[in-house]
Amino acid sequence: METKKQIVSSTPEPTIRRLPMYLSYLKNFLSDGREYISAPHIASDLRIDATTRTKDLAYIGISGKPKIGYSVPVLINYLEEFLGYNRNDLAFLVGAGNLGTALLKYEGFKNTGLRIVAAFDNDTRKIGGKIGGVEILPIDKLRNMIERMHIAIGIITTPEGVAQSIADMMIGWGIKAIWNFTPAIIKAPEGIFVENTSIYSNLAVIINKIQNQ
Amino acid sequence: METKKQIVSSTPEPTIRRLPMYLSYLKNFLSDGREYISAPHIASDLRIDATTRTKDLAYIGISGKPKIGYSVPVLINYLEEFLGYNRNDLAFLVGAGNLGTALLKYEGFKNTGLRIVAAFDNDTRKIGGKIGGVEILPIDKLRNMIERMHIAIGIITTPEGVAQSIADMMIGWGIKAIWNFTPAIIKAPEGIFVENTSIYSNLAVIINKIQNQ
Repeated sequence: METKKQIVSSTPEPTIRRLPMYLSYLKNFLSDGREYISAPHIASDLRIDATTRTKDLAYIGISGKPKIGYSVPVLINYLEEFLGYNRNDLAFLVGAGNLGTALLKYEGFKNTGLRIVAAFDNDTRKIGGKIGGVEILPIDKLRNMIERMHIAIGIITTPEGVAQSIADMMIGWGIKAIWNFTPAIIKAPEGIFVENTSIYSNLAVIINKIQNQ
Repeated sequence: METKKQIVSSTPEPTIRRLPMYLSYLKNFLSDGREYISAPHIASDLRIDATTRTKDLAYIGISGKPKIGYSVPVLINYLEEFLGYNRNDLAFLVGAGNLGTALLKYEGFKNTGLRIVAAFDNDTRKIGGKIGGVEILPIDKLRNMIERMHIAIGIITTPEGVAQSIADMMIGWGIKAIWNFTPAIIKAPEGIFVENTSIYSNLAVIINKIQNQ
């Protein structure tokens, strides 16, 4: 197990970001009834150069057989294991507005290890109800719930202006990773990981490409 | 104008992705009533190294004054101009499910140049209605509408399985940039830009960090 952990921790971030793409691609491939895939086939379909593809797959600890290639079900299994889809990683979500609601109802998480076990909001019309099967609780329950359930992941889908103060509370009460969907820049102490899903950054790149066409 | 265009097109993608973060930060800074900011101040608050910050701001064509720093309103203006927030970039969205609805209702786009002018779905209960003020039209109107309105940006929030066929149609009818919110890997011909907002990739990085703590 220790060896596996070391392999995992040394995996570069760009590789980790690409792995769900491999997984999605391979699941489609398998659903077409094909059991083996060659390495060049993967690389060309995903438009990844061969060197990158070889390194990516080496990080998850799998190598293909000469002339046969990779067993697709085995590769899927390795990827799911590596991505933690066989674990249960519990998360709380704060901010049950439009984006929060979309995430709570998001079917895609069912395939992953992420479980959003409760959501928090200050809107009394939402509190006590459920969205996507997840109960909406008042913000003042957040501390007690994080501490009691040892929740590691905090998802922030609040208005931008309160994102930092929600993050500060979450971190103070034991959250280890913040997933920030707001455009706010979240400051966090060493050892706390912040991942941003910034649709503004994506939009900026699109507009730049359009402008230069 | 030609010179500006050349500056724009040569800007590296990581810089473009960081610019909305500068903008968000500076707007907060200005709302605190502060008119000037020093370069080291920006770098330390955003946790960006000084070299990167200098290069990023040079790309948008602004330089600070010695001892005074940058005028915050001027810097905001330059960033908004660079990011195309003073333009109108028209987009269509296909797939008015949970994620599509969240995007249609997303208040944040109001500050940007993006205008989602129509959405398309095959759910007859949604067609004819409005979400976030945007009309929902049947998919079979897509071709005519793209061609008539010269829409350049297509946003895909459909189920993963139909994303490629929607993209193929959009591209065939004149869309220049695809913004893909599904986990599907969209293949597109040369000259068509595909930007992916992959929450699976973000999740993969978070789970990897949690696993290694």
